[in-house]
Amino acid sequence: MQAKATAINDWSAVMDIDEIETPSVLIDLDRVEANLKRAQDYADAHGLPLRPHVKTHKLPQMAQRQVALGAVGVTCQKIGEAEAMADGGQIDILLPYNILGRAKLDRLAALKARVKLSVTADNAETVAGYAGRFTADDPLTVLIECDTGARRCGVQTPEEAVALARKIDEAPGLAFGGLMTYPPQGRRAEVDRWLCVAKAALEEAGLPPPVISSGGTPDLMHAAEESVVSEYRPGTYIYCDRMQVAWGHGTLEDCALTVKATVVSRPTENRAVLDAGSKALAADPVPAPETGHGHILGYPEAVITGLSEEHAIVDLSGCAKRPVIGETVRVIPNHACVVSNLFDRVYLIRGNTVEEIAEVTSRGKLV
Amino acid sequence: MQAKATAINDWSAVMDIDEIETPSVLIDLDRVEANLKRAQDYADAHGLPLRPHVKTHKLPQMAQRQVALGAVGVTCQKIGEAEAMADGGQIDILLPYNILGRAKLDRLAALKARVKLSVTADNAETVAGYAGRFTADDPLTVLIECDTGARRCGVQTPEEAVALARKIDEAPGLAFGGLMTYPPQGRRAEVDRWLCVAKAALEEAGLPPPVISSGGTPDLMHAAEESVVSEYRPGTYIYCDRMQVAWGHGTLEDCALTVKATVVSRPTENRAVLDAGSKALAADPVPAPETGHGHILGYPEAVITGLSEEHAIVDLSGCAKRPVIGETVRVIPNHACVVSNLFDRVYLIRGNTVEEIAEVTSRGKLV
Repeated sequence: MQAKATAINDWSAVMDIDEIETPSVLIDLDRVEANLKRAQDYADAHGLPLRPHVKTHKLPQMAQRQVALGAVGVTCQKIGEAEAMADGGQIDILLPYNILGRAKLDRLAALKARVKLSVTADNAETVAGYAGRFTADDPLTVLIECDTGARRCGVQTPEEAVALARKIDEAPGLAFGGLMTYPPQGRRAEVDRWLCVAKAALEEAGLPPPVISSGGTPDLMHAAEESVVSEYRPGTYIYCDRMQVAWGHGTLEDCALTVKATVVSRPTENRAVLDAGSKALAADPVPAPETGHGHILGYPEAVITGLSEEHAIVDLSGCAKRPVIGETVRVIPNHACVVSNLFDRVYLIRGNTVEEIAEVTSRGKLV
Repeated sequence: MQAKATAINDWSAVMDIDEIETPSVLIDLDRVEANLKRAQDYADAHGLPLRPHVKTHKLPQMAQRQVALGAVGVTCQKIGEAEAMADGGQIDILLPYNILGRAKLDRLAALKARVKLSVTADNAETVAGYAGRFTADDPLTVLIECDTGARRCGVQTPEEAVALARKIDEAPGLAFGGLMTYPPQGRRAEVDRWLCVAKAALEEAGLPPPVISSGGTPDLMHAAEESVVSEYRPGTYIYCDRMQVAWGHGTLEDCALTVKATVVSRPTENRAVLDAGSKALAADPVPAPETGHGHILGYPEAVITGLSEEHAIVDLSGCAKRPVIGETVRVIPNHACVVSNLFDRVYLIRGNTVEEIAEVTSRGKLV
């Protein structure tokens, strides 16, 4: 692998997945394309624009695929992620975050000069910061983040939304862009009620919301059932993972991201150790009734009972077949997005062939 | 910060920690130096060589400090980490891992040409791989990893250790380097008994172990009480963290690594949201009775009850004083090592001044 790594995108050097060193991330492009198509077909059938969240893949190549299929733009969580996506050709970006402070606002302004940009706010301080930085000749579009039950950020009531919308509307450098929520999953009716009331209150106040944006992969294939949502931000749907499968979105056969790992030790009959620890698989838990830190393909009864940074401890006691030392396996992680953030590059594969070694250009963009 | 970031190591541009964008990692050098000195003084007083594990800091600057104080070398968990440390001037490296496969063995050989290197094995397959790659003119030193109760890697019995030592000893290209264990914490007597029996069995077999290496920060300040351990590999002692404090090593005042974060939202009276989620603080839990995902300096009653990738949810219900939107705080994470792996660069500070912006050169070295 080391020798071939220099041949990134040199198509004369065909690389097989067997040659990939462990631990590494493999992305199955056939599954990616099927996952994207399924979601876009649903969205198209219901006239619901998609604005995928890039946090799952952090790759310009994947954002390009999403937009080529019909996505209206992308969603990024941090300015650094958005800058990398602009570098990768994206021209329409939503940054659903309260962006505070002079340095970040300056970067935001520089980004705005390159792409169609919208942001969010859930408080007056953030709106005041935007208002002080942007001007009427090129106003910044600001959506209001609403807490519809997920208890993260967001205004708490439709009345607060109206008050904040007024502040945005009154600022010469800002344009009111609508409502944004990261909804609690599986509570669509409740979310929809919240947003309906807020929409009516805004219309009553003469500030109809141009966009009402919701998100989350678990409810993606029901997103059109919400009566007022006009744009949807799915993230994990591109790769799927154990968490999504546990929540009922997709199956293990839809999971496109796997971590290739090697069995480095078999200390006992019932224990194997993989060279993929929390630095490769991440420590995020899987929802019950699933357990463990990943699903090992070919060994469905194996349970990854513990992770340290560079080791996965596997309980083989339920396994008929058991892997041997030196054998490589592929693991579906609990949470694909956090795995993408741990690797500088990933292998885009088709069948057993590496199509591309991709730099994860939006990785580690914390600021 | 963006403007100044170009002035890395330009000492004419003095930077204050107030100028650092969030989220970022700050390393307090006074605390680092005190933590290192305390451990080295203990080790010196008891004649116990230290070989610090670089996984906590992943910085050549810190490895240099450790060796300058008296450490006999460093410990790295992956070849890539070790290569970065060799680039950073380290000349004596222990790699306590089963290294398998042609590509990795070739890299190991290249590394061995640059530094004094030793590795470990806990199985015959790994030893056979080493034996097939190294030759008698420049043999590779191999220690045997022992499972003394932590149930990760390691031979299960002293008899297995003797059998594996014989294989190493018989291979022309290998030299038997002794025993290595990552012990279960707080069970020193049990670990010591295991190692004593193994040492006696090896001596009986004519294969006295040149080194018996143990590790772990929680038991560091008792390491000399183990009768046969001849070298110790502490990692987290350099920074300390909530996990170590919960286990009784150090106090919050010893914690040198903090994550600087901004309060980006105050959706309710009792809720604050920080711009440091699991991408900044990592998702590792803290041992009971502590709870939450970090300790916020200045707000000891605040509890970080939840993390998503870019948000920390803080419960302020127990707080007399409450932070306002735009305020920056510093958070002691649960586990410092995994935080170091999430940032491309960290800020080395002395008081309120940035002494250096350091590239985390061993970050993300999974292979």
